[in-house]
Amino acid sequence: MSEPKLRAKELDAADGLAAQRAEFVLDEGGEAVYLDGNSLGALPVAVPGRVEDVVRRQWGELRIRSWTESGWWTAPERIGDRIAPLVGAAAGQIVVGDSTSVNVFKAVVGAVRLARSADGAAGLARDEIVVDATTFPTDGYIAESAARMTGCTLRPVPPSEVPDALGERTAAVLLNHVDYRTGRLHDLPALTAAVHAAGAYVVWDLCHSAGALPVGLDEHGVDLAVGCTYKYLNGGPGSPAYLYVRAELQDRFDSPLPGWNSHAEPFGMRPGYEPAPGALRGRVGTPDILSMLALEAALDVWDGVPVEAVRAKSLALTDFFLECVEAYVPEGRVECLTPAPHEERGSQVTLRCRDAGEVMRRLIERGVVGDFRHPDALRFGFTPLYVGFADAERAAGMLAVVLAETGP
Amino acid sequence: MSEPKLRAKELDAADGLAAQRAEFVLDEGGEAVYLDGNSLGALPVAVPGRVEDVVRRQWGELRIRSWTESGWWTAPERIGDRIAPLVGAAAGQIVVGDSTSVNVFKAVVGAVRLARSADGAAGLARDEIVVDATTFPTDGYIAESAARMTGCTLRPVPPSEVPDALGERTAAVLLNHVDYRTGRLHDLPALTAAVHAAGAYVVWDLCHSAGALPVGLDEHGVDLAVGCTYKYLNGGPGSPAYLYVRAELQDRFDSPLPGWNSHAEPFGMRPGYEPAPGALRGRVGTPDILSMLALEAALDVWDGVPVEAVRAKSLALTDFFLECVEAYVPEGRVECLTPAPHEERGSQVTLRCRDAGEVMRRLIERGVVGDFRHPDALRFGFTPLYVGFADAERAAGMLAVVLAETGP
Repeated sequence: MSEPKLRAKELDAADGLAAQRAEFVLDEGGEAVYLDGNSLGALPVAVPGRVEDVVRRQWGELRIRSWTESGWWTAPERIGDRIAPLVGAAAGQIVVGDSTSVNVFKAVVGAVRLARSADGAAGLARDEIVVDATTFPTDGYIAESAARMTGCTLRPVPPSEVPDALGERTAAVLLNHVDYRTGRLHDLPALTAAVHAAGAYVVWDLCHSAGALPVGLDEHGVDLAVGCTYKYLNGGPGSPAYLYVRAELQDRFDSPLPGWNSHAEPFGMRPGYEPAPGALRGRVGTPDILSMLALEAALDVWDGVPVEAVRAKSLALTDFFLECVEAYVPEGRVECLTPAPHEERGSQVTLRCRDAGEVMRRLIERGVVGDFRHPDALRFGFTPLYVGFADAERAAGMLAVVLAETGP
Repeated sequence: MSEPKLRAKELDAADGLAAQRAEFVLDEGGEAVYLDGNSLGALPVAVPGRVEDVVRRQWGELRIRSWTESGWWTAPERIGDRIAPLVGAAAGQIVVGDSTSVNVFKAVVGAVRLARSADGAAGLARDEIVVDATTFPTDGYIAESAARMTGCTLRPVPPSEVPDALGERTAAVLLNHVDYRTGRLHDLPALTAAVHAAGAYVVWDLCHSAGALPVGLDEHGVDLAVGCTYKYLNGGPGSPAYLYVRAELQDRFDSPLPGWNSHAEPFGMRPGYEPAPGALRGRVGTPDILSMLALEAALDVWDGVPVEAVRAKSLALTDFFLECVEAYVPEGRVECLTPAPHEERGSQVTLRCRDAGEVMRRLIERGVVGDFRHPDALRFGFTPLYVGFADAERAAGMLAVVLAETGP
């Protein structure tokens, strides 16, 4: 057995999270390695049965009564409270529903309005939204729309230059906690403090960090945050996203999408809008119950799992994968875009290589599933609840095989 | 057998849609009558198996590959094309996704922008959004937000007075095809023509008409429309809504929610937004696949069912229910809020009575499920695909029993 294979065996044997793997449907026995959980999390074992009950009994038999009897109506805030501890939030600050894009819109417009209502005439002069220039595209597109609709200018800035870009005109800042392409982890505490020092409000996009590492929303005084639930939270394809509004800001949170579900008395059917107190203010329309309750079932895998343990394993996995790549792949054939320091690394490894599209196609053919991002990036996501060290070794080995085939 | 019971038997025997009932999960054999399909449609028999396949095989086994191999990525427009014939639209004009409220926002802001881009300086002076004063509340709340964010004034007007309220300042008009409370059907062709004569753009909310009666979106030149899919379309609790943008307007449709799913090249991951052509421009973020594919399965019940036949049965059902109420319920005990003329009636009957909350509670206890709308309305929805004439007779009979109990 090669040295990396032996190491993998030792590391798997010592892995305190190894038992969690049984909570997921995986291709056990085969040679397949799923390293795309940063795009779509694997299916938790508990989900199919729960979804069947929702469809057959709750919808099929109880029908309309399930809005109360099966807890459909309160699902957005109940499931929000399940996500809360994973991102370092006390209960009552998160609601689930809508897509990430729609939640970015609520959060960015909400942040601009918070900034303007904060300090009278000075607040009104705030007319700039700063956005991570390397953001996942949808955040930039939606921030541009939010800017247009609030009379602001959108200013794209690389995250490292954000502190210098802030000023009296800054209303809101939209940042990604982990860069979707490179896997770089940004300094949430320092950037949040910088935004606050400028009198502005920050929105963090947690799509690539929630469920992979501690976020500490409350601890670091984050104002607003959004995230998807189908990556490290395993909620299923297109499962609903969430919105966090810090408790102290909720009374002033002024949503641009004040649907009837966010009304103080939704069944009063009143012509005038009066926002609900608390996190419910972030709701909009009728929640999509099937997707939402699949997510609720998926969150059971987190029971008793400290996110710190997930983070420790995630770093060990990405460290080990990089070691294996170094051992197996000829020098210079790939370049690692993911930062080496732990404090700058999320839970994925991105390798740049010339023929990345073709390389990933061949890897997937051989059962090593990562993904390709135009033009030259291979992404490998490490989801500590169900990926082991032997998986990492196998993936690196197969990468070396494929790279040898596709040329020097 | 009483005269209404005999009539019910004859009508059921002659019902050309009676066979459709077998496509749904109902409480056969029992005395239950489900008249709340105008709130949540019954479960189509085909749905549970399809959802199980989506969860276990498409998500659980194929995982990320399903975005292409299981047709996840194209589901919003594919399912939109399934809904299209039910609302009189040619293919390529409807996308499914997001809630009704979110789609109202896209449509109303989109309509204002269409009006302003239509005729130069004159267009820019259009600063009024007219909304049905009796609308389902969320439409009014969202229209208010759309007005605020586009520099318009919101003007609530009773539908009958809309033609007189239109003028050079009108940018957009948001109307309900069927009133959710009274079941009144509004004159879509005439109102659409009036809006167009004023140079404005109309948005129709089809929540309470799609799947119950012919809508004729293309025929009547409707500009934009939205609707939910969990009432007469039986998509399941909170199943995704849809957005119609008339083909000739799509190039100028300027969405306030330009998420990455509406980009001309979504996987190009470009920093600059460039809208996709066609109906796809109405998409926003990643679609909620579980809810969406449950809806797709639910739409199978429409294969070979002409919406005209549904309309004919719907009118026969509501006529017959009103006859039975007249036969069984003492005069003056309830008042019908639903218009008698067929051209003004949707597919529900709303009865006003003093103690409506208590009456509906007792009806539901006895298996006749309608719903109560504050302060005094009993709503009975007639979904022609699975409600029969015997159901209507039984519901009216039980209503008489309950009303006798609760006092004169």
